Amino acid sequence: MSHNSFGNLLKFTTWGESHGEAIGCVVDGFPANIPVDLKYIQSKLNTRRPGQSKFTTQRNEKDIVKILSGVFNGKSTGSPISFIIYNEDQRSKDYSNIQNKFRPGHADYTYHMKYKNFDYRGGGRSSARETAMRVAAGALSEMLISKITKPKMKITSGVIQIGNEKIKTDKWNENFINKNPFFSPNKGIVEKWEDLILTHRKNGSSLGAIIEVRVKNCPIGIGEPIYQKLDSELSKAIMSINAVKGIEFGTGFNLVELDGTNSSDQMSIKKNKIKFHSNHAGGILGGISSGQEIIFRYVVKPTSSVLSEKSTVTKNMKNSKVRTVGRHDPCVGIRAVPVGIAMTNFVIADLLMISRSKLF
Amino acid sequence: MSHNSFGNLLKFTTWGESHGEAIGCVVDGFPANIPVDLKYIQSKLNTRRPGQSKFTTQRNEKDIVKILSGVFNGKSTGSPISFIIYNEDQRSKDYSNIQNKFRPGHADYTYHMKYKNFDYRGGGRSSARETAMRVAAGALSEMLISKITKPKMKITSGVIQIGNEKIKTDKWNENFINKNPFFSPNKGIVEKWEDLILTHRKNGSSLGAIIEVRVKNCPIGIGEPIYQKLDSELSKAIMSINAVKGIEFGTGFNLVELDGTNSSDQMSIKKNKIKFHSNHAGGILGGISSGQEIIFRYVVKPTSSVLSEKSTVTKNMKNSKVRTVGRHDPCVGIRAVPVGIAMTNFVIADLLMISRSKLF
Amino acid sequence: MSHNSFGNLLKFTTWGESHGEAIGCVVDGFPANIPVDLKYIQSKLNTRRPGQSKFTTQRNEKDIVKILSGVFNGKSTGSPISFIIYNEDQRSKDYSNIQNKFRPGHADYTYHMKYKNFDYRGGGRSSARETAMRVAAGALSEMLISKITKPKMKITSGVIQIGNEKIKTDKWNENFINKNPFFSPNKGIVEKWEDLILTHRKNGSSLGAIIEVRVKNCPIGIGEPIYQKLDSELSKAIMSINAVKGIEFGTGFNLVELDGTNSSDQMSIKKNKIKFHSNHAGGILGGISSGQEIIFRYVVKPTSSVLSEKSTVTKNMKNSKVRTVGRHDPCVGIRAVPVGIAMTNFVIADLLMISRSKLF
Amino acid sequence: MSHNSFGNLLKFTTWGESHGEAIGCVVDGFPANIPVDLKYIQSKLNTRRPGQSKFTTQRNEKDIVKILSGVFNGKSTGSPISFIIYNEDQRSKDYSNIQNKFRPGHADYTYHMKYKNFDYRGGGRSSARETAMRVAAGALSEMLISKITKPKMKITSGVIQIGNEKIKTDKWNENFINKNPFFSPNKGIVEKWEDLILTHRKNGSSLGAIIEVRVKNCPIGIGEPIYQKLDSELSKAIMSINAVKGIEFGTGFNLVELDGTNSSDQMSIKKNKIKFHSNHAGGILGGISSGQEIIFRYVVKPTSSVLSEKSTVTKNMKNSKVRTVGRHDPCVGIRAVPVGIAMTNFVIADLLMISRSKLF
Repeated sequence: MSHNSFGNLLKFTTWGESHGEAIGCVVDGFPANIPVDLKYIQSKLNTRRPGQSKFTTQRNEKDIVKILSGVFNGKSTGSPISFIIYNEDQRSKDYSNIQNKFRPGHADYTYHMKYKNFDYRGGGRSSARETAMRVAAGALSEMLISKITKPKMKITSGVIQIGNEKIKTDKWNENFINKNPFFSPNKGIVEKWEDLILTHRKNGSSLGAIIEVRVKNCPIGIGEPIYQKLDSELSKAIMSINAVKGIEFGTGFNLVELDGTNSSDQMSIKKNKIKFHSNHAGGILGGISSGQEIIFRYVVKPTSSVLSEKSTVTKNMKNSKVRTVGRHDPCVGIRAVPVGIAMTNFVIADLLMISRSKLF
Repeated sequence: MSHNSFGNLLKFTTWGESHGEAIGCVVDGFPANIPVDLKYIQSKLNTRRPGQSKFTTQRNEKDIVKILSGVFNGKSTGSPISFIIYNEDQRSKDYSNIQNKFRPGHADYTYHMKYKNFDYRGGGRSSARETAMRVAAGALSEMLISKITKPKMKITSGVIQIGNEKIKTDKWNENFINKNPFFSPNKGIVEKWEDLILTHRKNGSSLGAIIEVRVKNCPIGIGEPIYQKLDSELSKAIMSINAVKGIEFGTGFNLVELDGTNSSDQMSIKKNKIKFHSNHAGGILGGISSGQEIIFRYVVKPTSSVLSEKSTVTKNMKNSKVRTVGRHDPCVGIRAVPVGIAMTNFVIADLLMISRSKLF
Repeated sequence: MSHNSFGNLLKFTTWGESHGEAIGCVVDGFPANIPVDLKYIQSKLNTRRPGQSKFTTQRNEKDIVKILSGVFNGKSTGSPISFIIYNEDQRSKDYSNIQNKFRPGHADYTYHMKYKNFDYRGGGRSSARETAMRVAAGALSEMLISKITKPKMKITSGVIQIGNEKIKTDKWNENFINKNPFFSPNKGIVEKWEDLILTHRKNGSSLGAIIEVRVKNCPIGIGEPIYQKLDSELSKAIMSINAVKGIEFGTGFNLVELDGTNSSDQMSIKKNKIKFHSNHAGGILGGISSGQEIIFRYVVKPTSSVLSEKSTVTKNMKNSKVRTVGRHDPCVGIRAVPVGIAMTNFVIADLLMISRSKLF
Repeated sequence: MSHNSFGNLLKFTTWGESHGEAIGCVVDGFPANIPVDLKYIQSKLNTRRPGQSKFTTQRNEKDIVKILSGVFNGKSTGSPISFIIYNEDQRSKDYSNIQNKFRPGHADYTYHMKYKNFDYRGGGRSSARETAMRVAAGALSEMLISKITKPKMKITSGVIQIGNEKIKTDKWNENFINKNPFFSPNKGIVEKWEDLILTHRKNGSSLGAIIEVRVKNCPIGIGEPIYQKLDSELSKAIMSINAVKGIEFGTGFNLVELDGTNSSDQMSIKKNKIKFHSNHAGGILGGISSGQEIIFRYVVKPTSSVLSEKSTVTKNMKNSKVRTVGRHDPCVGIRAVPVGIAMTNFVIADLLMISRSKLF
């Protein structure tokens, strides 16, 4: 059972609410003697951190992560690694006017119905703030992967569509991704996205996004059929991220318009290596990594907190109106990018360890 | 750890290869004293069974399921329920010519690389034959759900697109679904699909499909954030089905083209009940069922086994050609429909039981 | 969740009732390409089989085990291995007179209260017949251990006490164990035990036993603190065997009469190897194997089915008397020996695999 | 997988080392809306706290526990509950002289061999300090049990033997247990134990103990055969406590000297209720609670840290001598009492929840 845990051999458990005293994460099953670089972990958290540009929320959290256990003299000890971030910017008065109303598109209503209580202070547990801890766990798992993959596995991810403006994915400039506030792999689109976001912010609205993830040098053979397939586990992982509503691998939904003659990736030998002629499968066959680049995309719905007024109901079952005046991301999909990378790293690290346990 | 198991409190484990002596499934955690109707389970298996129409494979398996344990005097005992289907039609000679070649689009290559062995007799464990047992487990879990949901929860599912021919999903005729060989909820498209499939079969090719699932009367509050969300678990379940390459909930990938003002489902009170004005979320908010209809879609790639010749490599790393002459589904997506229903039933039954364990 | 499953990375799930059509077991997570010797597995089952001597029950089950999946050309494939034993000797009329009575010392009453049903035909799921499948799973896991331990790990186990007649454990003749019907490691006691058992059988009574298990060459470092310690996992495993009521490691309960100066095992270097001066800890420190011989003991209560009449109650809550006239073991502890070995093998194989997943 | 987690539906995960910055625990799966009384939890921690009397270690830890998440307005929210205790008294210089030596009886050697590192500062993760968090988790689970058991379930536990001085367990004075520094249920023995302990402390030695646990009003039907039996789960739980080397239920190891005519607990109806004539089974039949008092005992070996000099080896494989001059418990078994209670509460709460999930 794993309500708030993710993973199998390698597992993390997150805890904490957006407006509580702290949030945290315990990573269990992490092997001993892996160098743990806290600065690197912090740098990954910084990419997810709010307040970085005018295109994300102005909520100001420094998100300084501390390690409380499991690391001794710079290396993992084999014991659980406990991360903590103390919450600083808890301006909860922003939320007081909506205390009794279910914000449409948020989890207020379902949490209220499920738990018979609801932490109105910014969503409590359902807040995207929880994802900060995933970034820490993911960065940690990346250190493990780095140590055992040769050539080194590498995940890159970028936003490929905001609103109705999409990039051509064959123009994927990996180096540009971290040089713009949208994690765009394509320079040409940046100006359009700026306009789009500023217009929507002005109108009190928000935008959705599609994100692509690419994994280079994932070892062959990762994934445990039938129910721990690599794509199953990644889907579970990515769908657990706030506001994600769909995921597809390789050619994905467009596969329906190809026929069987053209949709499977043919192979041949070139220079003693197997080469695939295409990558419709997204690097996964039968739930197992094939050694090709792993490619998948997911969609993040527009931020539900908008300034424009919406119909809703109160906890007392009265009709009401609500508008959200707090500081929110005009396109929450942007900040999902480092979270998706983290979850992908973690899934692969876990499956890699499982895979190694079977080697005899 | 659950390589070949699915579920948490309610769990099934499948075993068996497509050309072995039998396939089977053990369902553990099923409550006692639930009436178990073997005829109903068999009827569900019959909908997945091959050889039903000229639009599916002509492989002839009667797929008669037996229960070997866990049921006494027509009721569950609380002990594990063991299903078995003895394989009959094992015409393995069909496969002998491809014994040393990796069929493109299949799991031959990755299984070979992972396990250093490969059961060439029809895919062995990676064959869709395994899904027969999911249908049995799903039908069983449906009996549990029926007993505890009022009004009774009901899942319907149909094919909404084959190749480039899609139906309008607002023309969803539930009653028609089981009256045509495509599980189409729409009469108008049937002739087009017949033509499409017969043409592709003739050309030695195959087609992909998109399937929609709708769940009425799912109780509110199902799903355990943050890592056992209803949509996470469903995604994991559906993505584990052979040839599925993507899943989306509610408005799904199209949400990217809506803005935040229009994409969240507003609510109001009508006749003392909460009514949502739309269903972009697909009935799930924050990973928890909202009481709205749950709606999701998934894509099944075109059958990889086609008559036309393809480039591939042999186990000895030589270039080669392969064509599959066995009996195969021209559109394997059709037979995925009952499997998707089964997995959906199972996921919900499991989460329902978890949810009940928390009631005090 | 694992009601009827045992293990973690390596897991088995048993199913079936003593008087149903068959019993079975699915082993999941077993690595590929391990030679699987069905004859060896059968030979282990034969040591547990009833009807072997006049000192065990005369119920005659051949217990022929079949493998239905997961083995191809004599080797494991990496897919689940399904074992089945069809029940033959189902003389259920023996039980008809007790259909409505709770047999004292048996699980009749608690199963009835828990499941609101009870399979009166020989205990159903609570019957020790289920342990046959553990022996199969244990023998399988032994093949895995054999392949990876050097020098080869070896488990021996014998009965060291029946009734009030105990052997001196320093007179442990490993070779004698399989040459007598009691699994006694000591020849001198055999005659006493024969007399004891025959006397008790004649009187319609039965006897308890204490069993010792010794594991040589268990690799150092097995066990995952804090909650998957080797001794925790072994205790869970052994306590799940029918009629076991206690377990102790090394000097066990007698440690209370030693003081701290004498109870911890001192160490020194001899010929470049660490040598312990004693083995009070039973080869486990902090839940991790130390490389010393692992030693533990468990107690099996006297068979509850006896001929002498006992007070009990009926399902209708009336006072009644019951005597069991079926064929039963006068000392069920004897037949627990191979089950204890099997569980020990399985626990160690599972923890060994976990341990290997952490090696970098 | 659960190296540092315990439980199933209700689960806790502990983290932290004895000389790190803090220790903590995350409880997941705890139902919503249960009143959480932090003062009660603290009071339970105080019973385990060192420095309470001259019969326990003088290490002075206030062990003030804080809750960082999962509780809002005095009630559980359904989200993970995070406990933390900041370490205060980290006098690690006590340990500096033994930095390179394996202390006999401790986990130093096996941790070193397993993890290739060892936290010499007081045992790190293997220190009994970890058990403080179990007491917090156990006290929390007790609040859940209190809410749903009628009559209220109650666990009492006391030391029944120290060294060779044992009490008569039929002289069990529940009220006296918390009025003496030994958790003795019997006044007569207190003076003997005082002498024993002071003598051993003076001699630089230490003592073992046997502890008995009694559970009144445990609901009938708790435990999930075959591999989540109540006694299996309790054994796993108790054996995970530092220094425990054996456990037995009911009459336990002494059952070997009874015969089958006398060892099973007969039943009869008195005043419309089932009454057992004895309790050899310790309240558990077939792994399921019978409604009788649950009784078990476990042995705690003498504290391994003693003043007297012992032979050992260094990390560099040299022969050496070691004596432990820190502040240690002369009889660590005493402080195990609240830990055993906590684990018992937790196991039962978890199984209770599982049991409720099956009710239809």
